Amino acid sequence: MTGPITVIPIDGVPEIQPGDDLGAILADRMEARGLEPAPGDVLVVTHKVVSKAEGRIRPAPDDAAYRAVVEEEARAVLRRRGDLTIAVTRHGFICANAGVDRSNTDEGSVVLLPIDPDRSAHRLRTTLRQRLGMDLAVVVTDTFGRPWRRGLVDVAIGISGLPAVVDLRGTLDGNGRTLEVTEIAVVDEIAAAADLVMGKAARVPAALVSGMDLTGEGRATDLVRPAGEDLFR
Amino acid sequence: MTGPITVIPIDGVPEIQPGDDLGAILADRMEARGLEPAPGDVLVVTHKVVSKAEGRIRPAPDDAAYRAVVEEEARAVLRRRGDLTIAVTRHGFICANAGVDRSNTDEGSVVLLPIDPDRSAHRLRTTLRQRLGMDLAVVVTDTFGRPWRRGLVDVAIGISGLPAVVDLRGTLDGNGRTLEVTEIAVVDEIAAAADLVMGKAARVPAALVSGMDLTGEGRATDLVRPAGEDLFR
Repeated sequence: MTGPITVIPIDGVPEIQPGDDLGAILADRMEARGLEPAPGDVLVVTHKVVSKAEGRIRPAPDDAAYRAVVEEEARAVLRRRGDLTIAVTRHGFICANAGVDRSNTDEGSVVLLPIDPDRSAHRLRTTLRQRLGMDLAVVVTDTFGRPWRRGLVDVAIGISGLPAVVDLRGTLDGNGRTLEVTEIAVVDEIAAAADLVMGKAARVPAALVSGMDLTGEGRATDLVRPAGEDLFR
Repeated sequence: MTGPITVIPIDGVPEIQPGDDLGAILADRMEARGLEPAPGDVLVVTHKVVSKAEGRIRPAPDDAAYRAVVEEEARAVLRRRGDLTIAVTRHGFICANAGVDRSNTDEGSVVLLPIDPDRSAHRLRTTLRQRLGMDLAVVVTDTFGRPWRRGLVDVAIGISGLPAVVDLRGTLDGNGRTLEVTEIAVVDEIAAAADLVMGKAARVPAALVSGMDLTGEGRATDLVRPAGEDLFR
């Protein structure tokens, strides 16, 4: 991982509707933009458009309806404060309001997380392979808050064609000693890098990350720390 | 933020010793590598070399000595499990072992966090301005674990010449509605992007991130969520 990395926004994506073939739409936009991806490049896409294409939209005309959807989506609640609920999603992710989002949605509706974001990523990858004739990796992202640190960052919630975590265990550091730092959450770092170009308000729901050299077949749920190992639940 | 972003590794940096002029060394390496930074580009550098240049190294020949240094550096301890201590640093950051690191160090010594990483970033920026004749932003990083998610990611612990957080409050989303998502921890996303090229074992302690368009004068300590607002301490 020592070459340069480029992160290119995929803009001009039309408003996505339930049933749309998102993979085909993104392939079209890459072609229209003259992007020439190479095998091993990573297509990063915000779950918002994935969820919309998959019909994961619910009516929620007011705050009470919104809260009801959050309760429905939450498998467990860790904390509540005012309007904020920190909940465990069906996938095991821990985030605000069980990932139910009412920004960038049509008035009166909310967007849920995909049922199985790893599978969503895999389907996008399959479509892209058919359309582009090459194998890209795919990362589906969401924007999460964190304990202890202000501000939100994008993280991976679904992946296909790359490992979630790169294990440096057993590799040697610059002094020939075994590294203590073992596992890098490389797909979360890719998600964060992509968010640098995915403007929240500019119809840039995807980015192409080139220059990575990762092989493997991980799942984003590999990133869920088992509850028994977690010191902060 | 809709142009492409590039992340270029700055490699071939020699082993850093206490008293070294790190800014001059990094400027030399950028020149040797033919890098032509533009004003507003971000130089990202791992704290390890910053700390070494600043003499933040302590002898710690064995585990007991290491643990004693961790206790000395910790301002408060949140959790302990086995060898792992989750502690609050002097800066307010919460991380494993108060940021005391024994990988990539000389045998028998450990590396502490800089006393004031924002000031370290500012000093590097000043040297780079003198050497390169232009104003770059600087981000000093460390590698942190997170609650709930496996794997480590790089985050910002010191910054100069850019805001820690970009506030989207009041901006409109793609549907003309006010965004709920308000604050993006953009320097943490820059740190994560840079880590994609900063190989842990390849003497790549820095990277140049180009294509950002951020102005402001934040501090990495802006990222510390006040204890009273934090639901997970």
